[in-house]
Amino acid sequence: MTELLSSIKKPNDVKAIPEDKLPRLAAEIRKEILLTVSKNGGHLASNLGAVELTIALHRFLTFPEDKLIWDVGHQCYTHKILTGRREAFSTLRREGGLSGFPKREESECDAFDTGHSSTSLSVAAGMAMARDLKGQKNRVVAVIGDGSLSGGMAYEALNNIGRFGTNVIVVLNDNEMSISKNVGGIANYLGHLRMSQGYLNLKNSVERKLNRTNIGGALAKGIKKTKDSIRQIVIPGDFFEEMGLTYFGPVDGHNVAEITMALQAAAKVRGGVLIHVITKKGKGYSFAEAEPCRFHGIEPFRLATGKVREVPEAPSYTSVFGREISRLAMKRPDIVCITAAMASGTGLSEFASDNPGRCFDVGIAEEHAVTFAAGMAASGLRPVVCIYSTFLQRAYDQILHDVCLPKLPVIFAVDRAGIVPHDGETHQGLFDISFLTSIPGMTVLAPSNASELRKMLCYALTIDGPVAIRYPKGSQDSDLEPYDEAPETGHCHEIVRGKDVAVSFVGPMRSTVDVAAELLAKDDIHPTIADARFVAPFDKEWIRGLAGTHKVLVTVEEGVAAGGYGTAVAAWVEEQGLPLRVSVISAPDGFLAHGSREELIRRCGLDAETIADRIRGLL
Amino acid sequence: MTELLSSIKKPNDVKAIPEDKLPRLAAEIRKEILLTVSKNGGHLASNLGAVELTIALHRFLTFPEDKLIWDVGHQCYTHKILTGRREAFSTLRREGGLSGFPKREESECDAFDTGHSSTSLSVAAGMAMARDLKGQKNRVVAVIGDGSLSGGMAYEALNNIGRFGTNVIVVLNDNEMSISKNVGGIANYLGHLRMSQGYLNLKNSVERKLNRTNIGGALAKGIKKTKDSIRQIVIPGDFFEEMGLTYFGPVDGHNVAEITMALQAAAKVRGGVLIHVITKKGKGYSFAEAEPCRFHGIEPFRLATGKVREVPEAPSYTSVFGREISRLAMKRPDIVCITAAMASGTGLSEFASDNPGRCFDVGIAEEHAVTFAAGMAASGLRPVVCIYSTFLQRAYDQILHDVCLPKLPVIFAVDRAGIVPHDGETHQGLFDISFLTSIPGMTVLAPSNASELRKMLCYALTIDGPVAIRYPKGSQDSDLEPYDEAPETGHCHEIVRGKDVAVSFVGPMRSTVDVAAELLAKDDIHPTIADARFVAPFDKEWIRGLAGTHKVLVTVEEGVAAGGYGTAVAAWVEEQGLPLRVSVISAPDGFLAHGSREELIRRCGLDAETIADRIRGLL
Repeated sequence: MTELLSSIKKPNDVKAIPEDKLPRLAAEIRKEILLTVSKNGGHLASNLGAVELTIALHRFLTFPEDKLIWDVGHQCYTHKILTGRREAFSTLRREGGLSGFPKREESECDAFDTGHSSTSLSVAAGMAMARDLKGQKNRVVAVIGDGSLSGGMAYEALNNIGRFGTNVIVVLNDNEMSISKNVGGIANYLGHLRMSQGYLNLKNSVERKLNRTNIGGALAKGIKKTKDSIRQIVIPGDFFEEMGLTYFGPVDGHNVAEITMALQAAAKVRGGVLIHVITKKGKGYSFAEAEPCRFHGIEPFRLATGKVREVPEAPSYTSVFGREISRLAMKRPDIVCITAAMASGTGLSEFASDNPGRCFDVGIAEEHAVTFAAGMAASGLRPVVCIYSTFLQRAYDQILHDVCLPKLPVIFAVDRAGIVPHDGETHQGLFDISFLTSIPGMTVLAPSNASELRKMLCYALTIDGPVAIRYPKGSQDSDLEPYDEAPETGHCHEIVRGKDVAVSFVGPMRSTVDVAAELLAKDDIHPTIADARFVAPFDKEWIRGLAGTHKVLVTVEEGVAAGGYGTAVAAWVEEQGLPLRVSVISAPDGFLAHGSREELIRRCGLDAETIADRIRGLL
Repeated sequence: MTELLSSIKKPNDVKAIPEDKLPRLAAEIRKEILLTVSKNGGHLASNLGAVELTIALHRFLTFPEDKLIWDVGHQCYTHKILTGRREAFSTLRREGGLSGFPKREESECDAFDTGHSSTSLSVAAGMAMARDLKGQKNRVVAVIGDGSLSGGMAYEALNNIGRFGTNVIVVLNDNEMSISKNVGGIANYLGHLRMSQGYLNLKNSVERKLNRTNIGGALAKGIKKTKDSIRQIVIPGDFFEEMGLTYFGPVDGHNVAEITMALQAAAKVRGGVLIHVITKKGKGYSFAEAEPCRFHGIEPFRLATGKVREVPEAPSYTSVFGREISRLAMKRPDIVCITAAMASGTGLSEFASDNPGRCFDVGIAEEHAVTFAAGMAASGLRPVVCIYSTFLQRAYDQILHDVCLPKLPVIFAVDRAGIVPHDGETHQGLFDISFLTSIPGMTVLAPSNASELRKMLCYALTIDGPVAIRYPKGSQDSDLEPYDEAPETGHCHEIVRGKDVAVSFVGPMRSTVDVAAELLAKDDIHPTIADARFVAPFDKEWIRGLAGTHKVLVTVEEGVAAGGYGTAVAAWVEEQGLPLRVSVISAPDGFLAHGSREELIRRCGLDAETIADRIRGLL
């Protein structure tokens, strides 16, 4: 049997596939996705769930004229396969290969770069308004998951789409999940819609709705014809209607014909339309259907068993954090944990099951998460906000205004800080040092191994003010000998005393710096090495002590230079007029595309060889 | 007639005032507010509108046990007067006097510091949850305006309050206004509630609702008794109910008895309750009722005429921007302006009336504003986002992820950058240099007068990428001679060539630096002076040229040092090993409380005398 996919060589080719062959096409796409993700890792469950939806969108839209914006973007694999990137698909998430997210630079069919949640509706509103102003007629469609809908900016956008009355189609891809199980009043509401009167009160509601939405008689007939398909109906979605959108749904998200009919109906409505599509995360792969959370973003795995191929030897920073916060919570009833749809990703599973009343997953809502924590801290609790570095960016104002200004003791457990492999530009944790240290009163620490992370958590609980602890994705270095002393505010830990050159590193760079030192030893260069421990306030006393005995201080960090640790150190040394040359090794200026951790470390010049070369060049 | 207010000396004293005297008390409070604000300036219209609401809340709650959180906080004057701060009220917004916003440091009755919009519901959720965990019984009430309700984080919080089921009372203070006229689907929806079936279908809906909300029979009777008061009713507020809250309203916000009854009813409901209160901005002062926007935040004015006392001689940066963007828009149909409830504050009135289809006020929704602009830029328009520095903090992630990552040509007109007088910590624009320059690819400019602002706008329109132009509140220096040359990427403008010491200033510090130079001339010190123009990328060539001929470079900026202009310059000079000592003059580390511009400049050490002293000390 000829493969259908091989006939899809460029955008819009999918329109030529006969309707009765679409289930076969969907199966081929699923196979392709499974093969590649099982080898390369990636977002599996959401992509398996969006195959038919994407096929329907590609039959409805014309690329690149029409604009399709994927919220978050990790569900775009079928879209990539259908837009001339099938051949390249095996390179997904590999160095130099396809990104796992939409990228304007990769294809003109990728209307907008996404990665963070809840942005698609604002982008769509902007594109629709621009289209109207320019007198163009193209379609604008945003696809947003039910999880992303809990993000506040999605609501801001709905509010404005409802008001402007421009033609935008919002496809709500409702799989009852964000990264973890979806939460919140809206989740309950969507559940209610899924179950409710629409199924019971079909005839009246369809007719009334069709009259309200100005859909022509032909369509009304079309919909009536299929009214025996219980999902192909139009029921009131009061929440969305009250924001000024027309609501269609729920629609079976694994039936291309039903989705297509809803899209065609939506195209005839003026103003914003929301099509509520029900999909199943992991659809078509039993392991992913059974465990959609585990298969949300997954490492390479064996197709036959669903088991991850390589299990790391050392525990990750995430798991060390998870265990330690659970341990601390036994003695400290004032500890509460807050996360924003990242409970398992931040290692909170144990804490949550031990302390269900003290663990708050607020859904994708980073801003609320931080200010909610501030409210708890103001009432005498010790909240720990567990969040990825890149998503914490969204709460910059809340950290500044609601936590640091009133000097509240909120602890930020900043996971995925520094280089984040495979996901690319939108997921790097390279900015947290800059934005956190710009805020007065914020203490920022970085552990270099599990022992340090544990000590820093204990330390943070003794501080009457905001503290952030940043640590990377991946395994910590379990071979390192722990330091004896506990962290002391503004003090680094000097590991070895050398001469001429000193190196101060932030967080998980210790082994790399050790290797660099070994390389330098061959040239009889023996640097003093210190673990910075405190990014802010950094250790001024130690640096002052270097002046006179050392010529050069090299700082090493996984973060951008602007506003970073090294920059702060260099500026201070300059202002003090110390006889010490500072050199900053950091991530280069710019955004960092996807690759493995090792590749990215090299690309940033943060590998041992480059560090050694830099030091040789300075002496 | 004895003044009632004089009997209110401490928190909870208002409970002793007989109910029939409350209108007189409200009148006395209005008089007090008018007297002080007409002298000191401040937020008038919102405070006049919230007098009865605040009295009702203070009779319902017990301070400081119960927690009352004011969203934004600028409507807290009556609250301050009723909590032992009546004597101090005449010092409002003055150096060392009362803040115009709630401050935990000022009173234990101020449950939380606010200033930015839409945070109160998250704070309230956190405080309520902490209360439950600690087994306490106090009440938690948040008061939020209809404008603040368009901010996404308010929705994130409602979504979670609905879900957690903790007891929180949300008072929606609906005056149909945010700073400007309120906009959006939700505004329409609230308007609909105000007008709708509740008034018509009273009996049924009240009874049905009362059954649903578990309010006891006594209350049901109480409410039925007053059913002839058409606002004292309970009608379905589907939007809020669908988020899991119980809706009460609308209630007449100028009738203490009605509000009190609603509060008492709400206290008997389990979970989140929203009381929809209708108030009139500016209530009781005819000029403010007629022009609530102008009397939102106002300079000192004459009570008899409503006219502002002192009209500045030179046009403000804001008005220069407004005029120039209107002029440019005549030739450039691709220019669109976006603001977030700051249309008149950012000078957009003229542009909006000339180009109604190209001016988008998205309401209090900074995140949406930025990404909406990104969508427009991706579609070939030239969006200009007009926003205050302090509120732009809320869109850090959107600037990074949706504008700078895809390198989109969005222009940010960052008003109120640097020192902002009178409003205090929450409104200072001291962080924009740090957070904007941490983002790769962001060009940041600062004009030192009107001519520069105009030139920089024209320049920004020639750049194919993101550009921010930051300028302060207040009048620009109209006496300065304009520079001949147009801005050139990464180049400063050297105003005078001196020797030994060089000064590079950012934005509106030119006159101050000139005065400092005059002071230094007496000691025969003649600095080289340059207008930085470009904060990022800054002029490295010019700095390199100083090395050898100058000993010291002093940078001067209105912003925090961490991640600021001077820090970037100092770090670069240090890394380059140039024979030049850099000294950074900036806002001190910490948050800056309220005061006049002159006072704050002095407090920051950014006045001419201090700058001259610093330079003398360095030589």
